Amino acid sequence: MAANNTITLYDLQLASGCTISPFVWRTKYALKHKGFDIDIVPGGFTGIKERTGGRSERVPCIVDDGHWVLDSWVIAEYLDEKYPDRPMLFEGPSMKAMLRFLDSWLWATAIRPWFQCYILDYHDLSLPQDHAYVRESRERMFLQGRKLEDVQAGREDRLPLVPPTLEPFRQLLRETKWLGGETPNYADYSALAVFLWTASVAKIPPLTEDDPLRDWLDRGFDLYGGLGRHPGMHTLFGLKLREGDPEPFVKEGAGLNTAPVNKGAPAAR
Amino acid sequence: MAANNTITLYDLQLASGCTISPFVWRTKYALKHKGFDIDIVPGGFTGIKERTGGRSERVPCIVDDGHWVLDSWVIAEYLDEKYPDRPMLFEGPSMKAMLRFLDSWLWATAIRPWFQCYILDYHDLSLPQDHAYVRESRERMFLQGRKLEDVQAGREDRLPLVPPTLEPFRQLLRETKWLGGETPNYADYSALAVFLWTASVAKIPPLTEDDPLRDWLDRGFDLYGGLGRHPGMHTLFGLKLREGDPEPFVKEGAGLNTAPVNKGAPAAR
Repeated sequence: MAANNTITLYDLQLASGCTISPFVWRTKYALKHKGFDIDIVPGGFTGIKERTGGRSERVPCIVDDGHWVLDSWVIAEYLDEKYPDRPMLFEGPSMKAMLRFLDSWLWATAIRPWFQCYILDYHDLSLPQDHAYVRESRERMFLQGRKLEDVQAGREDRLPLVPPTLEPFRQLLRETKWLGGETPNYADYSALAVFLWTASVAKIPPLTEDDPLRDWLDRGFDLYGGLGRHPGMHTLFGLKLREGDPEPFVKEGAGLNTAPVNKGAPAAR
Repeated sequence: MAANNTITLYDLQLASGCTISPFVWRTKYALKHKGFDIDIVPGGFTGIKERTGGRSERVPCIVDDGHWVLDSWVIAEYLDEKYPDRPMLFEGPSMKAMLRFLDSWLWATAIRPWFQCYILDYHDLSLPQDHAYVRESRERMFLQGRKLEDVQAGREDRLPLVPPTLEPFRQLLRETKWLGGETPNYADYSALAVFLWTASVAKIPPLTEDDPLRDWLDRGFDLYGGLGRHPGMHTLFGLKLREGDPEPFVKEGAGLNTAPVNKGAPAAR
Protein backbone atom coordinates (compact mmCIF):
# COMPACT_ATOMS: atom_id res chain seq x y z
CA MET A 1 0.00 0.00 0.00
CA ALA A 2 1.28 3.44 -0.96
CA ALA A 3 2.77 5.15 2.10
CA ASN A 4 0.70 8.16 3.21
CA ASN A 5 -1.62 7.38 0.29
CA THR A 6 0.99 9.00 -1.98
CA ILE A 7 2.53 7.74 -5.24
CA THR A 8 5.57 9.32 -6.88
CA LEU A 9 5.19 10.37 -10.53
CA TYR A 10 8.00 11.38 -12.88
CA ASP A 11 6.61 14.24 -14.94
CA LEU A 12 7.44 15.73 -18.36
CA GLN A 13 7.05 19.46 -18.11
CA LEU A 14 7.34 22.67 -20.08
CA ALA A 15 9.11 25.77 -18.74
CA SER A 16 5.82 26.87 -17.11
CA GLY A 17 5.81 23.69 -15.04
CA CYS A 18 2.75 22.35 -16.81
CA THR A 19 2.74 18.77 -18.06
CA ILE A 20 3.09 18.32 -21.82
CA SER A 21 3.18 14.53 -22.35
CA PRO A 22 -0.26 13.02 -23.01
CA PHE A 23 1.01 9.82 -21.42
CA VAL A 24 1.88 11.65 -18.20
CA TRP A 25 -1.45 13.49 -18.32
CA ARG A 26 -3.48 10.31 -18.40
CA THR A 27 -1.36 8.85 -15.61
CA LYS A 28 -2.00 11.92 -13.42
CA TYR A 29 -5.75 11.46 -13.93
CA ALA A 30 -5.47 7.72 -13.28
CA LEU A 31 -3.70 8.29 -9.95
CA LYS A 32 -6.34 10.82 -8.88
CA HIS A 33 -9.14 8.48 -10.01
CA LYS A 34 -7.71 5.84 -7.69
CA GLY A 35 -7.70 8.38 -4.87
CA PHE A 36 -3.96 8.88 -4.49
CA ASP A 37 -2.00 12.00 -3.73
CA ILE A 38 0.78 12.56 -6.24
CA ASP A 39 4.36 13.39 -5.40
CA ILE A 40 5.62 14.96 -8.63
CA VAL A 41 9.25 14.66 -9.68
CA PRO A 42 9.61 17.62 -12.03
CA GLY A 43 11.65 17.74 -15.20
CA GLY A 44 11.64 18.13 -18.96
CA PHE A 45 12.57 16.10 -22.02
CA THR A 46 16.23 15.65 -21.17
CA GLY A 47 17.86 14.01 -18.18
CA ILE A 48 15.15 11.40 -17.60
CA LYS A 49 17.67 8.59 -17.23
CA GLU A 50 19.56 10.59 -14.63
CA ARG A 51 16.39 11.58 -12.73
CA THR A 52 15.19 7.99 -12.62
CA GLY A 53 18.54 6.59 -11.52
CA GLY A 54 18.93 4.74 -14.80
CA ARG A 55 15.53 3.07 -14.52
CA SER A 56 13.96 4.57 -17.63
CA GLU A 57 14.62 6.80 -20.62
CA ARG A 58 10.95 7.75 -20.86
CA VAL A 59 8.17 8.99 -18.63
CA PRO A 60 5.74 8.52 -17.00
CA CYS A 61 7.15 6.25 -14.35
CA ILE A 62 5.61 5.84 -10.94
CA VAL A 63 7.10 4.61 -7.70
CA ASP A 64 4.62 3.02 -5.30
CA ASP A 65 6.27 2.34 -1.96
CA GLY A 66 9.59 1.59 -3.63
CA HIS A 67 8.05 -0.40 -6.50
CA TRP A 68 8.74 1.09 -9.95
CA VAL A 69 6.17 0.83 -12.75
CA LEU A 70 6.93 2.13 -16.27
CA ASP A 71 4.59 3.04 -19.17
CA SER A 72 1.23 4.77 -18.82
CA TRP A 73 -0.87 1.80 -19.97
CA VAL A 74 1.03 -0.62 -17.75
CA ILE A 75 0.68 1.81 -14.83
CA ALA A 76 -3.11 1.97 -15.30
CA GLU A 77 -3.35 -1.82 -15.38
CA TYR A 78 -1.11 -2.04 -12.32
CA LEU A 79 -3.31 0.39 -10.38
CA ASP A 80 -6.47 -1.61 -11.09
CA GLU A 81 -4.77 -4.89 -10.24
CA LYS A 82 -3.10 -3.67 -7.06
CA TYR A 83 -6.03 -1.57 -5.83
CA PRO A 84 -9.22 -3.32 -7.01
CA ASP A 85 -11.22 -1.92 -4.07
CA ARG A 86 -10.79 1.62 -5.36
CA PRO A 87 -12.75 2.92 -8.39
CA MET A 88 -11.73 0.94 -11.46
CA LEU A 89 -10.01 2.59 -14.42
CA PHE A 90 -10.93 -0.18 -16.84
CA GLU A 91 -14.32 -1.79 -17.23
CA GLY A 92 -12.98 -4.97 -18.85
CA PRO A 93 -11.11 -6.35 -21.87
CA SER A 94 -13.61 -5.16 -24.46
CA MET A 95 -13.41 -1.57 -23.31
CA LYS A 96 -9.60 -1.85 -23.29
CA ALA A 97 -9.49 -3.09 -26.87
CA MET A 98 -11.83 -0.41 -28.16
CA LEU A 99 -10.08 2.32 -26.21
CA ARG A 100 -6.89 1.48 -28.10
CA PHE A 101 -8.86 1.91 -31.32
CA LEU A 102 -10.31 5.26 -30.21
CA ASP A 103 -6.88 6.41 -29.08
CA SER A 104 -5.30 5.56 -32.41
CA TRP A 105 -8.09 7.42 -34.17
CA LEU A 106 -7.65 10.52 -32.01
CA TRP A 107 -3.90 10.49 -32.55
CA ALA A 108 -4.31 10.23 -36.31
CA THR A 109 -7.17 12.72 -36.49
CA ALA A 110 -6.18 15.35 -33.92
CA ILE A 111 -2.60 15.02 -32.73
CA ARG A 112 -1.06 14.37 -36.14
CA PRO A 113 -2.28 17.64 -37.75
CA TRP A 114 -2.01 19.69 -34.55
CA PHE A 115 1.57 18.51 -34.00
CA GLN A 116 2.47 20.22 -37.25
CA CYS A 117 0.51 23.35 -36.30
CA TYR A 118 2.09 23.79 -32.87
CA ILE A 119 5.56 22.27 -33.16
CA LEU A 120 7.38 25.62 -32.89
CA ASP A 121 5.22 26.65 -29.89
CA TYR A 122 6.02 23.24 -28.40
CA HIS A 123 9.72 23.98 -28.81
CA ASP A 124 9.52 27.56 -27.56
CA LEU A 125 7.50 26.56 -24.47
CA SER A 126 9.85 23.77 -23.46
CA LEU A 127 12.52 24.27 -20.81
CA PRO A 128 15.54 26.22 -22.10
CA GLN A 129 17.83 23.23 -21.53
CA ASP A 130 15.49 21.09 -23.71
CA HIS A 131 15.40 23.39 -26.75
CA ALA A 132 18.27 21.82 -28.65
CA TYR A 133 17.04 18.27 -27.98
CA VAL A 134 13.43 19.06 -28.90
CA ARG A 135 14.44 20.72 -32.15
CA GLU A 136 16.90 18.05 -33.21
CA SER A 137 14.81 15.02 -32.22
CA ARG A 138 11.51 16.30 -33.64
CA GLU A 139 13.03 17.42 -36.93
CA ARG A 140 14.82 14.11 -37.32
CA MET A 141 12.27 11.62 -35.95
CA PHE A 142 8.92 13.10 -36.98
CA LEU A 143 9.45 15.78 -39.61
CA GLN A 144 11.77 14.20 -42.18
CA GLY A 145 14.40 16.79 -41.43
CA ARG A 146 12.19 19.84 -42.07
CA LYS A 147 12.72 22.86 -39.84
CA LEU A 148 10.16 23.48 -37.06
CA GLU A 149 9.55 26.98 -38.44
CA ASP A 150 8.78 25.66 -41.92
CA VAL A 151 6.45 22.95 -40.59
CA GLN A 152 4.39 25.32 -38.44
CA ALA A 153 4.20 28.04 -41.13
CA GLY A 154 0.79 28.41 -42.76
CA ARG A 155 -1.09 26.91 -39.84
CA GLU A 156 -3.82 29.54 -40.23
CA ASP A 157 -4.83 27.67 -43.38
CA ARG A 158 -4.63 24.21 -41.80
CA LEU A 159 -6.20 24.69 -38.37
CA PRO A 160 -9.76 25.24 -39.70
CA LEU A 161 -9.58 21.88 -41.49
CA VAL A 162 -9.24 19.86 -38.26
CA PRO A 163 -12.50 20.53 -36.32
CA PRO A 164 -14.80 19.03 -38.98
CA THR A 165 -12.82 15.77 -38.88
CA LEU A 166 -13.59 15.40 -35.16
CA GLU A 167 -17.31 14.90 -35.87
CA PRO A 168 -17.37 11.15 -35.07
CA PHE A 169 -15.89 11.91 -31.67
CA ARG A 170 -18.52 14.62 -31.07
CA GLN A 171 -21.19 12.13 -32.02
CA LEU A 172 -19.82 9.68 -29.45
CA LEU A 173 -20.02 12.34 -26.74
CA ARG A 174 -23.55 13.31 -27.71
CA GLU A 175 -24.66 9.85 -26.62
CA THR A 176 -22.97 9.59 -23.24
CA LYS A 177 -21.99 11.91 -20.42
CA TRP A 178 -18.53 10.40 -20.09
CA LEU A 179 -16.79 7.74 -22.15
CA GLY A 180 -16.98 5.77 -18.91
CA GLY A 181 -20.78 6.18 -18.74
CA GLU A 182 -22.20 8.17 -15.83
CA THR A 183 -18.70 8.70 -14.39
CA PRO A 184 -15.33 9.10 -16.10
CA ASN A 185 -12.83 6.27 -16.45
CA TYR A 186 -9.54 5.65 -18.23
CA ALA A 187 -11.24 6.08 -21.62
CA ASP A 188 -11.98 9.69 -20.70
CA TYR A 189 -8.51 10.30 -19.31
CA SER A 190 -6.87 8.85 -22.38
CA ALA A 191 -8.98 10.94 -24.75
CA LEU A 192 -8.68 14.05 -22.56
CA ALA A 193 -4.90 13.61 -22.66
CA VAL A 194 -4.95 14.38 -26.39
CA PHE A 195 -6.56 17.76 -25.66
CA LEU A 196 -4.51 18.38 -22.53
CA TRP A 197 -1.38 17.96 -24.65
CA THR A 198 -2.86 20.39 -27.16
CA ALA A 199 -3.72 22.98 -24.50
CA SER A 200 -0.18 22.76 -23.17
CA VAL A 201 1.34 23.84 -26.50
CA ALA A 202 -1.35 25.72 -28.46
CA LYS A 203 -0.50 29.43 -28.43
CA ILE A 204 -3.47 29.97 -30.75
CA PRO A 205 -6.67 27.98 -30.26
CA PRO A 206 -7.57 24.90 -32.35
CA LEU A 207 -11.35 24.82 -31.71
CA THR A 208 -14.14 27.37 -32.09
CA GLU A 209 -15.77 28.98 -29.03
CA ASP A 210 -18.99 27.03 -29.56
CA ASP A 211 -17.54 23.59 -30.27
CA PRO A 212 -19.88 20.95 -28.76
CA LEU A 213 -16.81 19.13 -27.43
CA ARG A 214 -16.40 22.03 -25.00
CA ASP A 215 -18.84 20.64 -22.44
CA TRP A 216 -16.95 17.36 -22.02
CA LEU A 217 -13.56 19.08 -22.25
CA ASP A 218 -14.44 21.66 -19.57
CA ARG A 219 -15.82 18.98 -17.26
CA GLY A 220 -12.71 16.89 -17.85
CA PHE A 221 -10.23 19.70 -17.25
CA ASP A 222 -12.13 20.59 -14.04
CA LEU A 223 -11.91 17.08 -12.54
CA TYR A 224 -9.94 16.54 -9.33
CA GLY A 225 -9.82 20.17 -8.33
CA GLY A 226 -9.03 21.46 -11.80
CA LEU A 227 -6.23 19.05 -12.60
CA GLY A 228 -6.18 20.31 -16.20
CA ARG A 229 -6.22 24.00 -15.26
CA HIS A 230 -2.51 24.68 -14.73
CA PRO A 231 -1.80 28.40 -15.37
CA GLY A 232 0.66 27.39 -18.09
CA MET A 233 -2.16 25.88 -20.20
CA HIS A 234 -3.69 27.74 -23.17
CA THR A 235 -7.36 27.90 -24.04
CA LEU A 236 -8.54 25.47 -26.69
CA PHE A 237 -11.40 27.72 -27.78
CA GLY A 238 -11.47 30.80 -29.96
CA LEU A 239 -10.41 29.62 -33.41
CA LYS A 240 -11.52 32.31 -35.85
CA LEU A 241 -12.91 31.04 -39.14
CA ARG A 242 -12.50 32.91 -42.38
CA GLU A 243 -14.57 33.10 -45.53
CA GLY A 244 -14.45 29.71 -47.24
CA ASP A 245 -13.42 27.67 -44.19
CA PRO A 246 -15.53 24.51 -43.71
CA GLU A 247 -18.25 24.31 -41.07
CA PRO A 248 -16.40 23.27 -37.89
CA PHE A 249 -19.09 20.89 -36.63
CA VAL A 250 -22.52 19.54 -37.47
CA LYS A 251 -25.33 21.43 -35.80
CA GLU A 252 -27.24 19.42 -33.17
CA GLY A 253 -29.86 17.21 -34.80
CA ALA A 254 -28.74 17.96 -38.34
CA GLY A 255 -26.29 15.19 -38.96
CA LEU A 256 -26.79 12.31 -36.57
CA ASN A 257 -25.32 9.36 -38.37
CA THR A 258 -26.41 6.50 -36.13
CA ALA A 259 -29.51 4.59 -37.01
CA PRO A 260 -32.65 5.81 -35.25
CA VAL A 261 -34.20 3.39 -32.78
CA ASN A 262 -37.06 1.31 -34.16
CA LYS A 263 -40.07 2.31 -32.09
CA GLY A 264 -42.52 0.38 -34.24
CA ALA A 265 -44.95 1.30 -36.98
CA PRO A 266 -47.02 4.43 -36.27
CA ALA A 267 -50.16 2.53 -37.27
CA ALA A 268 -49.58 -0.05 -34.53
CA ARG A 269 -50.27 2.42 -31.70
CA MET B 1 -38.59 -17.08 -19.73
CA ALA B 2 -38.60 -18.01 -23.40
CA ALA B 3 -40.78 -21.09 -23.91
CA ASN B 4 -38.70 -24.14 -24.99
CA ASN B 5 -35.66 -21.85 -24.80
CA THR B 6 -36.75 -20.40 -28.16
CA ILE B 7 -37.12 -16.78 -29.26
CA THR B 8 -38.83 -15.73 -32.48
CA LEU B 9 -36.83 -13.51 -34.85
CA TYR B 10 -38.20 -11.61 -37.84
CA ASP B 11 -35.54 -11.89 -40.52
CA LEU B 12 -34.62 -9.85 -43.61
CA GLN B 13 -33.57 -12.24 -46.32
CA LEU B 14 -32.35 -12.44 -49.88
CA ALA B 15 -33.79 -14.88 -52.42
CA SER B 16 -31.27 -17.50 -51.25
CA GLY B 17 -32.76 -17.34 -47.77
CA CYS B 18 -29.62 -15.84 -46.31
CA THR B 19 -29.87 -12.82 -44.05
CA ILE B 20 -28.81 -9.50 -45.56
CA SER B 21 -29.50 -6.92 -42.84
CA PRO B 22 -26.49 -6.26 -40.57
CA PHE B 23 -28.95 -5.45 -37.79
CA VAL B 24 -30.58 -8.86 -38.11
CA TRP B 25 -27.16 -10.51 -38.32
CA ARG B 26 -26.00 -9.07 -35.01
CA THR B 27 -29.31 -10.01 -33.40
CA LYS B 28 -28.93 -13.62 -34.57
CA TYR B 29 -25.50 -13.77 -32.96
CA ALA B 30 -26.81 -12.09 -29.81
CA LEU B 31 -29.57 -14.68 -29.42
CA LYS B 32 -27.09 -17.53 -29.89
CA HIS B 33 -24.65 -15.91 -27.45
CA LYS B 34 -27.41 -15.95 -24.84
CA GLY B 35 -27.98 -19.62 -25.58
CA PHE B 36 -31.38 -19.42 -27.28
CA ASP B 37 -32.74 -21.36 -30.17
CA ILE B 38 -34.12 -19.09 -32.88
CA ASP B 39 -37.48 -19.45 -34.56
CA ILE B 40 -36.99 -17.53 -37.80
CA VAL B 41 -39.89 -15.74 -39.47
CA PRO B 42 -38.64 -15.48 -43.05
CA GLY B 43 -39.21 -12.60 -45.44
CA GLY B 44 -37.63 -9.84 -47.46
CA PHE B 45 -37.67 -6.05 -47.62
CA THR B 46 -41.38 -5.68 -48.32
CA GLY B 47 -44.38 -6.76 -46.30
CA ILE B 48 -42.74 -6.32 -42.87
CA LYS B 49 -45.72 -4.49 -41.47
CA GLU B 50 -48.02 -7.28 -42.59
CA ARG B 51 -45.71 -10.03 -41.25
CA THR B 52 -45.47 -8.33 -37.87
CA GLY B 53 -49.21 -7.70 -37.58
CA GLY B 54 -48.64 -3.94 -37.78
CA ARG B 55 -46.07 -3.97 -34.97
CA SER B 56 -43.12 -2.70 -36.98
CA GLU B 57 -42.06 -1.43 -40.38
CA ARG B 58 -38.50 -2.57 -39.79
CA VAL B 59 -36.61 -5.65 -38.66
CA PRO B 60 -35.17 -7.18 -36.59
CA CYS B 61 -37.98 -7.72 -34.11
CA ILE B 62 -38.03 -10.52 -31.60
CA VAL B 63 -40.90 -12.07 -29.71
CA ASP B 64 -39.99 -13.60 -26.37
CA ASP B 65 -42.91 -15.52 -24.93
CA GLY B 66 -45.37 -13.04 -26.42
CA HIS B 67 -43.30 -9.96 -25.56
CA TRP B 68 -42.23 -7.93 -28.61
CA VAL B 69 -38.89 -6.11 -28.68
CA LEU B 70 -37.90 -3.90 -31.63
CA ASP B 71 -34.50 -2.60 -32.78
CA SER B 72 -31.24 -4.59 -32.66
CA TRP B 73 -29.56 -2.44 -30.01
CA VAL B 74 -32.65 -2.41 -27.80
CA ILE B 75 -32.96 -6.18 -28.25
CA ALA B 76 -29.36 -6.72 -27.10
CA GLU B 77 -29.93 -4.55 -24.02
CA TYR B 78 -33.18 -6.38 -23.33
CA LEU B 79 -31.46 -9.77 -23.50
CA ASP B 80 -28.79 -8.75 -20.99
CA GLU B 81 -31.34 -7.19 -18.67
CA LYS B 82 -33.83 -10.06 -18.83
CA TYR B 83 -31.23 -12.83 -18.77
CA PRO B 84 -28.31 -11.59 -16.65
CA ASP B 85 -27.37 -15.13 -15.62
CA ARG B 86 -26.50 -16.04 -19.20
CA PRO B 87 -23.27 -14.80 -20.86
CA MET B 88 -23.39 -11.02 -21.11
CA LEU B 89 -23.41 -9.25 -24.47
CA PHE B 90 -22.23 -5.94 -23.02
CA GLU B 91 -19.39 -5.44 -20.58
CA GLY B 92 -20.64 -2.07 -19.34
CA PRO B 93 -21.41 1.52 -20.36
CA SER B 94 -17.90 2.37 -21.52
CA MET B 95 -17.76 -0.55 -23.93
CA LYS B 96 -21.23 0.41 -25.19
CA ALA B 97 -20.18 3.98 -25.92
CA MET B 98 -17.00 2.98 -27.70
CA LEU B 99 -18.76 0.26 -29.67
CA ARG B 100 -21.05 2.92 -31.13
CA PHE B 101 -17.91 4.80 -32.18
CA LEU B 102 -16.34 1.72 -33.76
CA ASP B 103 -19.60 0.91 -35.51
CA SER B 104 -19.89 4.39 -36.99
CA TRP B 105 -16.29 4.12 -38.17
CA LEU B 106 -16.88 0.74 -39.82
CA TRP B 107 -20.02 1.98 -41.54
CA ALA B 108 -18.23 5.03 -42.88
CA THR B 109 -15.07 3.16 -43.82
CA ALA B 110 -16.40 -0.17 -45.12
CA ILE B 111 -20.14 -0.16 -45.73
CA ARG B 112 -20.30 3.25 -47.38
CA PRO B 113 -17.88 2.41 -50.24
CA TRP B 114 -18.94 -1.25 -50.51
CA PHE B 115 -22.61 -0.25 -50.73
CA GLN B 116 -21.77 1.57 -53.95
CA CYS B 117 -19.71 -1.39 -55.22
CA TYR B 118 -22.39 -4.03 -54.60
CA ILE B 119 -25.70 -2.20 -54.90
CA LEU B 120 -26.72 -3.90 -58.15
CA ASP B 121 -25.74 -7.35 -56.74
CA TYR B 122 -27.78 -6.42 -53.66
CA HIS B 123 -30.76 -5.73 -55.88
CA ASP B 124 -30.30 -8.79 -58.07
CA LEU B 125 -29.92 -11.13 -55.07
CA SER B 126 -33.03 -9.85 -53.31
CA LEU B 127 -36.35 -11.64 -53.54
CA PRO B 128 -38.14 -11.08 -56.88
CA GLN B 129 -41.03 -9.34 -55.14
CA ASP B 130 -38.56 -6.91 -53.52
CA HIS B 131 -36.79 -5.82 -56.72
CA ALA B 132 -38.94 -2.79 -57.48
CA TYR B 133 -38.86 -1.59 -53.86
CA VAL B 134 -35.10 -2.07 -53.49
CA ARG B 135 -34.38 -0.22 -56.71
CA GLU B 136 -36.74 2.66 -56.05
CA SER B 137 -35.91 3.17 -52.36
CA ARG B 138 -32.11 2.85 -52.72
CA GLU B 139 -31.95 5.16 -55.73
CA ARG B 140 -34.10 7.74 -53.99
CA MET B 141 -32.91 7.50 -50.37
CA PHE B 142 -29.19 6.76 -50.71
CA LEU B 143 -28.05 7.45 -54.26
CA GLN B 144 -29.44 10.89 -55.11
CA GLY B 145 -31.53 9.39 -57.87
CA ARG B 146 -28.63 7.70 -59.69
CA LYS B 147 -29.34 4.32 -61.30
CA LEU B 148 -28.02 1.21 -59.48
CA GLU B 149 -26.17 0.19 -62.65
CA ASP B 150 -24.40 3.54 -62.90
CA VAL B 151 -23.42 3.51 -59.22
CA GLN B 152 -21.91 0.02 -59.30
CA ALA B 153 -20.09 0.57 -62.62
CA GLY B 154 -16.33 0.92 -62.33
CA ARG B 155 -16.11 -0.95 -59.04
CA GLU B 156 -12.94 -2.70 -60.23
CA ASP B 157 -11.22 0.65 -59.80
CA ARG B 158 -12.76 1.41 -56.41
CA LEU B 159 -12.61 -1.94 -54.59
CA PRO B 160 -8.78 -1.95 -54.23
CA LEU B 161 -8.97 1.42 -52.45
CA VAL B 162 -10.97 0.06 -49.51
CA PRO B 163 -8.69 -2.56 -47.86
CA PRO B 164 -5.91 -0.07 -46.98
CA THR B 165 -8.42 2.11 -45.13
CA LEU B 166 -9.27 -0.81 -42.81
CA GLU B 167 -5.79 -0.77 -41.28
CA PRO B 168 -6.85 0.74 -37.90
CA PHE B 169 -9.35 -2.10 -37.53
CA ARG B 170 -6.65 -4.66 -38.37
CA GLN B 171 -4.42 -3.06 -35.76
CA LEU B 172 -7.20 -3.42 -33.17
CA LEU B 173 -7.51 -7.14 -33.96
CA ARG B 174 -3.75 -7.68 -33.78
CA GLU B 175 -3.95 -6.81 -30.09
CA THR B 176 -6.85 -8.99 -28.99
CA LYS B 177 -8.33 -12.35 -29.92
CA TRP B 178 -11.87 -11.00 -29.95
CA LEU B 179 -13.20 -7.47 -29.46
CA GLY B 180 -14.73 -8.96 -26.32
CA GLY B 181 -11.32 -10.14 -25.07
CA GLU B 182 -10.77 -13.90 -24.74
CA THR B 183 -14.34 -14.60 -25.88
CA PRO B 184 -16.60 -12.75 -28.32
CA ASN B 185 -19.29 -10.33 -27.22
CA TYR B 186 -21.66 -7.84 -28.86
CA ALA B 187 -18.72 -5.75 -30.08
CA ASP B 188 -17.65 -8.71 -32.24
CA TYR B 189 -21.17 -9.42 -33.45
CA SER B 190 -21.73 -5.81 -34.36
CA ALA B 191 -18.46 -5.56 -36.29
CA LEU B 192 -18.92 -9.00 -37.85
CA ALA B 193 -22.35 -7.87 -39.05
CA VAL B 194 -20.67 -5.35 -41.36
CA PHE B 195 -18.79 -8.18 -43.06
CA LEU B 196 -21.73 -10.61 -42.93
CA TRP B 197 -23.77 -8.00 -44.82
CA THR B 198 -20.94 -7.70 -47.32
CA ALA B 199 -20.66 -11.46 -47.79
CA SER B 200 -24.40 -11.64 -48.42
CA VAL B 201 -24.22 -9.27 -51.42
CA ALA B 202 -20.63 -9.38 -52.75
CA LYS B 203 -20.60 -11.31 -56.03
CA ILE B 204 -16.91 -10.41 -56.36
CA PRO B 205 -14.67 -10.34 -53.27
CA PRO B 206 -13.72 -7.14 -51.44
CA LEU B 207 -10.61 -8.41 -49.59
CA THR B 208 -7.41 -10.15 -50.69
CA GLU B 209 -6.83 -13.84 -49.91
CA ASP B 210 -4.16 -13.00 -47.34
CA ASP B 211 -5.92 -10.18 -45.50
CA PRO B 212 -4.99 -10.38 -41.79
CA LEU B 213 -8.66 -9.76 -40.95
CA ARG B 214 -9.35 -13.24 -42.29
CA ASP B 215 -8.48 -15.01 -39.03
CA TRP B 216 -11.03 -13.07 -36.98
CA LEU B 217 -13.60 -13.15 -39.79
CA ASP B 218 -13.31 -16.92 -40.25
CA ARG B 219 -13.56 -17.53 -36.51
CA GLY B 220 -16.57 -15.22 -36.35
CA PHE B 221 -18.41 -16.75 -39.28
CA ASP B 222 -17.78 -20.21 -37.75
CA LEU B 223 -19.33 -19.38 -34.36
CA TYR B 224 -22.46 -21.19 -33.24
CA GLY B 225 -22.20 -24.03 -35.71
CA GLY B 226 -21.24 -21.82 -38.63
CA LEU B 227 -23.96 -19.23 -38.21
CA GLY B 228 -22.33 -17.06 -40.88
CA ARG B 229 -21.87 -19.94 -43.36
CA HIS B 230 -25.23 -19.95 -45.15
CA PRO B 231 -24.81 -21.38 -48.66
CA GLY B 232 -26.16 -18.12 -50.07
CA MET B 233 -23.13 -16.21 -48.76
CA HIS B 234 -20.19 -15.22 -50.97
CA THR B 235 -16.53 -15.40 -50.07
CA LEU B 236 -14.96 -12.16 -48.90
CA PHE B 237 -11.49 -13.20 -50.06
CA GLY B 238 -9.93 -13.21 -53.49
CA LEU B 239 -9.74 -9.58 -54.56
CA LYS B 240 -7.20 -9.39 -57.38
CA LEU B 241 -4.94 -6.38 -57.34
CA ARG B 242 -3.63 -4.78 -60.48
CA GLU B 243 -0.49 -2.81 -61.27
CA GLY B 244 -0.68 0.50 -59.43
CA ASP B 245 -3.24 -0.55 -56.79
CA PRO B 246 -2.22 0.41 -53.24
CA GLU B 247 -0.85 -2.15 -50.76
CA PRO B 248 -3.99 -3.70 -49.21
CA PHE B 249 -2.60 -3.92 -45.68
CA VAL B 250 0.50 -3.22 -43.63
CA LYS B 251 2.76 -6.23 -43.23
CA GLU B 252 2.99 -7.53 -39.67
CA GLY B 253 5.49 -5.56 -37.65
CA ALA B 254 6.07 -2.94 -40.32
CA GLY B 255 3.54 -0.32 -39.36
CA LEU B 256 2.40 -0.72 -35.79
CA ASN B 257 1.14 2.70 -34.85
CA THR B 258 0.63 2.32 -31.14
CA ALA B 259 3.33 3.43 -28.78
CA PRO B 260 5.68 0.65 -27.70
CA VAL B 261 5.58 -0.29 -24.04
CA ASN B 262 8.25 1.36 -21.91
CA LYS B 263 10.32 -1.51 -20.56
CA GLY B 264 12.96 0.76 -19.05
CA ALA B 265 16.40 1.87 -20.07
CA PRO B 266 18.64 -0.90 -21.41
CA ALA B 267 21.44 0.29 -19.11
CA ALA B 268 19.28 -0.31 -16.06
CA ARG B 269 19.28 -4.10 -16.48
